[in-house]
Amino acid sequence: MRKINIALCGFGTVGKGVYEILKKNKKILQRRAQLDFSIKKVLVKNINKKRDAELEFTTDFSDIANDKSIDIVVELIGGTTLAETIILDALKRKKSVVTANKALLALKGFNLARVAEKYNSSLYYEASVAGGIPIIKVFKEAMTSNNIEYFYGILNGTSNYILTKMSSFGEPFAKVLKNAQAKGYAESDPSFDIEGVDAAHKLAILISLAYDAEIDFNDIYVEGISSISSEDIKFAREFGYTIKLLAISKKNGEDIEGRVHPVLIKKDTVLSFINGVFNAVYIKGDFIGPSLYYGKGAGSFPTATSVFSDIIDAATNINKHNSFAKPVFTCSVSRMKKVQLKSMLQLRTKYYLRFSVLDKPGVLSKISGILGEYSISLEAVIQKGRVNESNGKNSVPIVMITHESLEKNIIDALSIIDKLDIVKEKTFFIRIEDFNE
Amino acid sequence: MRKINIALCGFGTVGKGVYEILKKNKKILQRRAQLDFSIKKVLVKNINKKRDAELEFTTDFSDIANDKSIDIVVELIGGTTLAETIILDALKRKKSVVTANKALLALKGFNLARVAEKYNSSLYYEASVAGGIPIIKVFKEAMTSNNIEYFYGILNGTSNYILTKMSSFGEPFAKVLKNAQAKGYAESDPSFDIEGVDAAHKLAILISLAYDAEIDFNDIYVEGISSISSEDIKFAREFGYTIKLLAISKKNGEDIEGRVHPVLIKKDTVLSFINGVFNAVYIKGDFIGPSLYYGKGAGSFPTATSVFSDIIDAATNINKHNSFAKPVFTCSVSRMKKVQLKSMLQLRTKYYLRFSVLDKPGVLSKISGILGEYSISLEAVIQKGRVNESNGKNSVPIVMITHESLEKNIIDALSIIDKLDIVKEKTFFIRIEDFNE
Repeated sequence: MRKINIALCGFGTVGKGVYEILKKNKKILQRRAQLDFSIKKVLVKNINKKRDAELEFTTDFSDIANDKSIDIVVELIGGTTLAETIILDALKRKKSVVTANKALLALKGFNLARVAEKYNSSLYYEASVAGGIPIIKVFKEAMTSNNIEYFYGILNGTSNYILTKMSSFGEPFAKVLKNAQAKGYAESDPSFDIEGVDAAHKLAILISLAYDAEIDFNDIYVEGISSISSEDIKFAREFGYTIKLLAISKKNGEDIEGRVHPVLIKKDTVLSFINGVFNAVYIKGDFIGPSLYYGKGAGSFPTATSVFSDIIDAATNINKHNSFAKPVFTCSVSRMKKVQLKSMLQLRTKYYLRFSVLDKPGVLSKISGILGEYSISLEAVIQKGRVNESNGKNSVPIVMITHESLEKNIIDALSIIDKLDIVKEKTFFIRIEDFNE
Repeated sequence: MRKINIALCGFGTVGKGVYEILKKNKKILQRRAQLDFSIKKVLVKNINKKRDAELEFTTDFSDIANDKSIDIVVELIGGTTLAETIILDALKRKKSVVTANKALLALKGFNLARVAEKYNSSLYYEASVAGGIPIIKVFKEAMTSNNIEYFYGILNGTSNYILTKMSSFGEPFAKVLKNAQAKGYAESDPSFDIEGVDAAHKLAILISLAYDAEIDFNDIYVEGISSISSEDIKFAREFGYTIKLLAISKKNGEDIEGRVHPVLIKKDTVLSFINGVFNAVYIKGDFIGPSLYYGKGAGSFPTATSVFSDIIDAATNINKHNSFAKPVFTCSVSRMKKVQLKSMLQLRTKYYLRFSVLDKPGVLSKISGILGEYSISLEAVIQKGRVNESNGKNSVPIVMITHESLEKNIIDALSIIDKLDIVKEKTFFIRIEDFNE
């Protein structure tokens, strides 16, 4: 049985997971792939750290780079500096590369793809998006024949966990975050997760795959969940909605949207049942119709399973002396189209608006009058007296659901409304996605 | 750009779908696969039937068999006779074969695999299970490194549609079936769908993929939904359950279960939200944890999307002059293990029991006494007086949820109970799956 030598760069959570899978399931892997996988070298920062694994550790990447017996380089360091150096080096040496690095893919993926294609090397990254869910394979292989019309992703487990707990127990954001940190579901610095950046990295990768589009990561609109209050969750529920942090992309003609932000979705849709640390991607293709992929979005073993799925694909190609590398994205990067994502000001959707106003006659009419001037009409309104007096704010909330409106008009109207004496706080809005399953 | 010549055998719903996809999305396919797909010949029964497609039709398979320019034979005839002849012929001529034929795979798949592997030919069948859901790829590629512990499938859209409607509107089976037939969701002879046979064909394929097991289709236990009453759905709901037709397989040591039957699942689990004609597969692997794949299980375009995904995989291999065919199942059929599925009598699970009894004192104690003699203990009981009087049955239902019990004990106990004078009808039972997500 042919031996496949793997070099792991990084031996954190995911690296250890890859090691554990190989240890426990070596026989299955041999039976299925007819290959004898072996972790030959492991790149680490600190060679003296005690590790419960009989492996050859090194702190010097050149030990790996110069080892001609290594077939596959697995990059699990993260970040965009050393990781990039390692991947570029390996691709140029025509080694197959497997990575879980979403930030690097999102920020520098097109360059990596150009190098890979120039050297006819393979770059795999199933583990970079949605942990154990084989979503890269879905876009690259299962849906190749379809025009993707839109997709929604719950791509950040931490945020989804926090919103789930806030919804279940009515607890405020800060308290739930603290609990999540205590349980290891949120990092001590959680900003990448809760501010939507992590989800946006993953969205960038999926947009490129879905639409063969070369985009600028900075074009993606990113808004996190830290401003969501228990009050918003309660009001949303009264209107029949759940609040989720969604990564959204839609294609309409040449227009492509790419945005990460909290969203109200109808509470009887399948996405609203994706709870806790789970991830899900809901995709609509022109022929396949709607489909959904659901699983653990992070964690050692789910992510390592995806790394291994890539290792097997890479090894099978190597074993077959198959010298044709697949494109890194759905099509070769040379045939991808440079696309500027649609401006948020041009977005048309429904909105949830929460005003904090003085409890005086005529307030509702004043506000809805201004909205009307900006062509914003209302589908539903909740006005409740004095609920905020207890917290000393001396204001009451008015909550509205608009009909489909232009985001530019919403922003312009709110800038006028927020200057009124009767308005006590900056008006908060959340976008709504009413999609039919 | 290299031309890939496809022969379609059969031009029904799915064949037309393949044609439509190629017509509409030819450019995308060319950009992505860098191949020029063309439907060269189409095998049909009746050449004179008017078809809205500019294609070369033939009634003689030898026209296709002898055409050396054909790269891929797509079998969409169905059934296990002509379809088998066509596939075997094509495999022996070293053509790649794509099929959507679940019955043939379930009944004769291992023989097809042996022939394919003998001739080093490729056989693809993504469209055979769960229409547009790439579930074959998930088992064969994404989860290769995992031991699958169990999986559940909602694999028959017709049955799921009927159960969904019965649950939503409280309507009886017969009425819902009639409506489903009128809407085209059920065939005029619906027995394959509603009696579980179609789901069992698909289950057989997935069991082989999940466990590298060569099984006998006839070992699969098959029970359909035609005995489910609106009353059962109502009682299940009172206990917190939804009724679904599930295809179930579990591995425990060397024991493998394979069964299709109605199941009570907790109503807050993700599977219970899979409604209407949708399919879903829920899989638990030892490392990946739980994951779920959801989409349209049938219909022209979702199924044709999966056929096209296979066509592209096949064509890419052909284009790369890749002469190594992948195994038909997750591992080569020569390394698969012959397995006899576990007998249903050995099943241990919870049960829903519905008794029809005379409304007399002591009945409950008599029945639970007999159950106790067979080590069957109860978790919950609903006894309601006289609800059946209106339908002239002169009996009342007693409904019970048992703790985990041995199926043999259930059957033995019920055979005693059903002989009692106080019992007016054969006792009806439904198995329960309490799985933790």
